[in-house]
Amino acid sequence: MMIVKVGGGLDVNRSGIAEDLTNISEKVIFVHGGREQTNLLAQNLNQPTRKIVSPSGITSIYTDGKAMELMLMTYSGLLNKSWVAQFSKAGLRPIGLSGADGNLWQAERKKHLIAVEGDKQKLVKDTFTGRVIKVNKKLIETLLKDGYLPVITQPAITESGELVNTDNDLNLAVMAEAMGVETLVNLFEAPGLLKNLDDSNSLIRKVDKNDLPQMMRYAKGTMKKKILGAVKAFDVGVRRICWGDSRVKRPIESALAGKGTVISG
Amino acid sequence: MMIVKVGGGLDVNRSGIAEDLTNISEKVIFVHGGREQTNLLAQNLNQPTRKIVSPSGITSIYTDGKAMELMLMTYSGLLNKSWVAQFSKAGLRPIGLSGADGNLWQAERKKHLIAVEGDKQKLVKDTFTGRVIKVNKKLIETLLKDGYLPVITQPAITESGELVNTDNDLNLAVMAEAMGVETLVNLFEAPGLLKNLDDSNSLIRKVDKNDLPQMMRYAKGTMKKKILGAVKAFDVGVRRICWGDSRVKRPIESALAGKGTVISG
Repeated sequence: MMIVKVGGGLDVNRSGIAEDLTNISEKVIFVHGGREQTNLLAQNLNQPTRKIVSPSGITSIYTDGKAMELMLMTYSGLLNKSWVAQFSKAGLRPIGLSGADGNLWQAERKKHLIAVEGDKQKLVKDTFTGRVIKVNKKLIETLLKDGYLPVITQPAITESGELVNTDNDLNLAVMAEAMGVETLVNLFEAPGLLKNLDDSNSLIRKVDKNDLPQMMRYAKGTMKKKILGAVKAFDVGVRRICWGDSRVKRPIESALAGKGTVISG
Repeated sequence: MMIVKVGGGLDVNRSGIAEDLTNISEKVIFVHGGREQTNLLAQNLNQPTRKIVSPSGITSIYTDGKAMELMLMTYSGLLNKSWVAQFSKAGLRPIGLSGADGNLWQAERKKHLIAVEGDKQKLVKDTFTGRVIKVNKKLIETLLKDGYLPVITQPAITESGELVNTDNDLNLAVMAEAMGVETLVNLFEAPGLLKNLDDSNSLIRKVDKNDLPQMMRYAKGTMKKKILGAVKAFDVGVRRICWGDSRVKRPIESALAGKGTVISG
C-alpha cells in the first residue's frame, strides 16, 4: 500500500497523475491539498487569507470560521470532486472524502496557537486548527477492499463535531502508521528539496532519514512542514519517502524513480 | 429504510433535523440541496446564476462549467461538510458524498435542453445537465451496514467521468427504486403544497397519488419538480411521501406526523 499526496498548487499535472495511478498495482490512498485555489477564492471574495508564523518560523493559515468555509468550498468541494472526475475519466474508482466523513481523520482542536508578530508573541485562540490523533482505519480498509481509490482532503473533525484544519504532511505520517504504509509519495511544485530555491540544479537527490533535521536549513515555506512530516513518518515505520514535482509529465512515476528527492535509511 | 431530502434554503433548521434523525430507528439515506447558498456565492463572485425555462414551464439552472464549479464549492463542499459536522455533533455517523463519488449516481448527460425565451424555443447544448440512470446500491448498502449515515448531494457523474447537475427530486425516486425504499420525506421552505402560495392556511394535507398530476396547477417554481419526482417515485414502488417544512422545530418528525402534505394511495 502506498500513500500519494499532491499539494495544492495551480499547475499540477492532474491527467499525468491519474495516468500514473492506473499503472500502479499496489493499493493507493490519495491525499490532496488546495491552498492556492483557496487563496484565489479568498481574493475573489475580498476575504484575504491570514497567516500565522510560529516561534520556530513555520507559517500556517489563520483558520477562523470564514477561512474554514472557504476551505470546505475548495478542498472538500471544488478540488476533491475535480480529482474524482479526473480519476473517473482514467477508469479508476475514486471516492472523495474529507477527513470529517465517517470520522476518517479524528482530530483534537488546538487550544491556542502561538503567533510571532514582529518581536512579540501572541496567543491566538479562535482558530479551527487541530491535529489528527486517530484514523478510521476500518473505513479505508473497507473502501480499498471494494476496489475504491480513497481521495482524501481537509478538514478533519473533533470528537464533538468541530471541523478543523490540520497539517496534511503530518497526516500522511498518521495515516501511514494506522495503515502500515511503507512508501509515501509527496508531490509539490518544485523538483524536490533544493539547496537553493532559485536553482533547480541544486536538487538534493538522496537524504538519509537521520539527516532530515539538518535539511531544515534548506527548507523554505511549506518545505519545513514536509520535513517535520517526514521525520514523524520514519518514526512510525515508513521506509521510503519520495518528494517530487507535481507538474512534470509523469509525476508519480518520476518521483518513485528517484527524479526528485528520495529519503530512506 | 427511509430517504430524507432537505432543500437548499437558507433558513433550514439543521439542528432540529439532526435531532430528529437521532430518534429514527430505521436506516436513513440523507440527500440535501444547496441552491440558495450557490446563488449567494454566485452573487458574491459576480457570476449570476442563469436559468432555463422548459416548454412545460419548469425552471432549471443553466449549468455551464463555471456554474458547475460553484455547485462543487457549495453543494459538495460547504454544505455537505456542514451537514456532516452537524450530524456528527448529534452523535450520528455521517459520511458525506457527492453523486460522483464511487459512481454513486451514475448519469447520462443530456445532449441538449430546450429553452423557452419569449415566444421562441432554443436548443441549449453546452450545459452539464443530466439524469441519474443508475445508483451504486452496493456502496450505500455497505455504508449503511457499517452504521454510517450517507449524506448525499450533487453532482452526479457520467460513465466518461463528466460531472453533471441532476434533479435531486427525481434522484429520490431513482434511489428509492434501487434501494427498495417505501417512505420519502422531502423538506423545503414552505409548510407543504399550498393551494395559494401566499396563504399558509391553504395547505393541502393529503393527496392521493393518482391525483398528483392535478396538483400541478397549484405548484409554483420547484414544487413542479417535486410533483414530477413524486409521480415517478410512486411508479417505482414508493408508498408514502411526506412533504414538510424544513424550518420548523422538528422538521422530519412533523412531516412524518402529517403536518405537511402526505401523498399516498
